[in-house]
Amino acid sequence: MDTNGGELQAYLGRQLALIEEALHRFMPAAAIRPDRLHEAMRYSVLGGGKRIRPVLLLAACEAVGGDPRKALPAACAVEMIHAYSLIHDDLPAMDNDDLRRGRPTNHKVYGEATAILAGDGLLTEAFVLLSRNDVLTDVTTADRLAIINLLATHAGTRGMVGGQMVDMEVEGSTIDLPILEYIHTHKTGALIKAAVGIGAIVGGALAQQREALQRYAAAAGLAFQIADDILDVTAMTDELGKRSGSDQQRGKATYPGFFGLAEAQQRARELNDIAIDSLQLFGEEAQPLRAIARYIIERSY
Amino acid sequence: MDTNGGELQAYLGRQLALIEEALHRFMPAAAIRPDRLHEAMRYSVLGGGKRIRPVLLLAACEAVGGDPRKALPAACAVEMIHAYSLIHDDLPAMDNDDLRRGRPTNHKVYGEATAILAGDGLLTEAFVLLSRNDVLTDVTTADRLAIINLLATHAGTRGMVGGQMVDMEVEGSTIDLPILEYIHTHKTGALIKAAVGIGAIVGGALAQQREALQRYAAAAGLAFQIADDILDVTAMTDELGKRSGSDQQRGKATYPGFFGLAEAQQRARELNDIAIDSLQLFGEEAQPLRAIARYIIERSY
Repeated sequence: MDTNGGELQAYLGRQLALIEEALHRFMPAAAIRPDRLHEAMRYSVLGGGKRIRPVLLLAACEAVGGDPRKALPAACAVEMIHAYSLIHDDLPAMDNDDLRRGRPTNHKVYGEATAILAGDGLLTEAFVLLSRNDVLTDVTTADRLAIINLLATHAGTRGMVGGQMVDMEVEGSTIDLPILEYIHTHKTGALIKAAVGIGAIVGGALAQQREALQRYAAAAGLAFQIADDILDVTAMTDELGKRSGSDQQRGKATYPGFFGLAEAQQRARELNDIAIDSLQLFGEEAQPLRAIARYIIERSY
Repeated sequence: MDTNGGELQAYLGRQLALIEEALHRFMPAAAIRPDRLHEAMRYSVLGGGKRIRPVLLLAACEAVGGDPRKALPAACAVEMIHAYSLIHDDLPAMDNDDLRRGRPTNHKVYGEATAILAGDGLLTEAFVLLSRNDVLTDVTTADRLAIINLLATHAGTRGMVGGQMVDMEVEGSTIDLPILEYIHTHKTGALIKAAVGIGAIVGGALAQQREALQRYAAAAGLAFQIADDILDVTAMTDELGKRSGSDQQRGKATYPGFFGLAEAQQRARELNDIAIDSLQLFGEEAQPLRAIARYIIERSY
């Protein structure tokens, strides 16, 4: 699979179609009471996005020989967690963003109180979905508990929420590299690691495969965040769907801000190499994971 | 066990000691990074409260012959969900409360952004705890998934979050009885039902016992909310630990507001009778549940 040859695009197109269909199916219908709340939740989850976490989850499942379609409920749960985190991050008390993926943010459309509850609802719904007895029926109950623990640990205060907290605490102040790396590995990296780890469990990964995929996820996740930081500096507002340079303006901790653009790009390339090297024990079935790692870097040029 | 004879007080004292010790043990330590966030979470969880949900969970476990100490991790998870809901409910964009249990609310002490993240962290931590492989080791993995599903469903948009949403939507407008009952059964009742249901599962309840306990929880939960509404009208601010009459002032949907005080008290008594009648198939081992139902009503006189 080649990122330039259109093969990755075709692959991503197929996976995205599966993911969008599953999200529509697994999200509570807007007709269910309280309808305005479910509508607000659907607005954020079904409003587009790169779906990088569910795509990685399905690709990790595939890499260990599993059927990615069987991992769709888990992929949707991870995306619900991601969507909740964006809704809460955008709130006036947090980043106070008006625009997300080219559309008004959740609280701009539904008001702050509903946006808080929509986030709470999505976070909870992820665990409703993962514990339903009509999904993930090929996964042992012990492995399903492991999936829930992996997601909760990486989404919570030792993971994503922790990263968001420290990011907020250091805003506007001078930070050192360990703090910058803590923020990146927790705020974005943790959920990416969880996605890959969950895909591996659903696919029935052996211990050695799981470890290799963890190394892949750590490197690709950090590369993804650096690429995002680079795009915030180099892209136009309409390409980003949010204000370009907004991280910089707020004094957010970013890689290009810390190292400069050229060194940030160099670091992203190195991480990309590490991610791809981690997959040496896999054959053809890990081509999507390799192509996604390359794609993450290339979009930051 | 008699509510007047001090036996219930002694029982509650023993259970509360177990619950407080377990909460201290299962909450992330304030020394763990991000320390200020964990401190904010501990401020709300360990800052007192009636612990009615964990007490009911342990009592339900006991009623079906289980060892209540084995249910402590689940009791703590339910209390974490309750604490998160109070933090988010008190936010300026929601009820905008300054005082809770006689102390400044979470956002008053730690700021709004931290309070939002503390709530998110607690909600997530409940599922971290329930899925840990070193707790609830006597419960089958299938039953542990059922516990997670019960809690998530009752805490989410079909339960507690749904109740909060509708409560907020109707604030200040005239409402009918079905809406009032929807709010009460969802906003408070759902988590109480989950607590009793989880206690039953941990205790190894038979189907018939589970159904009886569900009827008990539905009646006792609604009685509890009506008693709370009555107290908001009749008690002084220093007894409540929050402003007395604050629900009324905000035009909140309450039972005494809808029916008047005398009829609300009558309705609470009837629900109490239903709760106690539901326990007919149990013997001495359900005395705590009976006494708690009586206690819920008596504190509203």
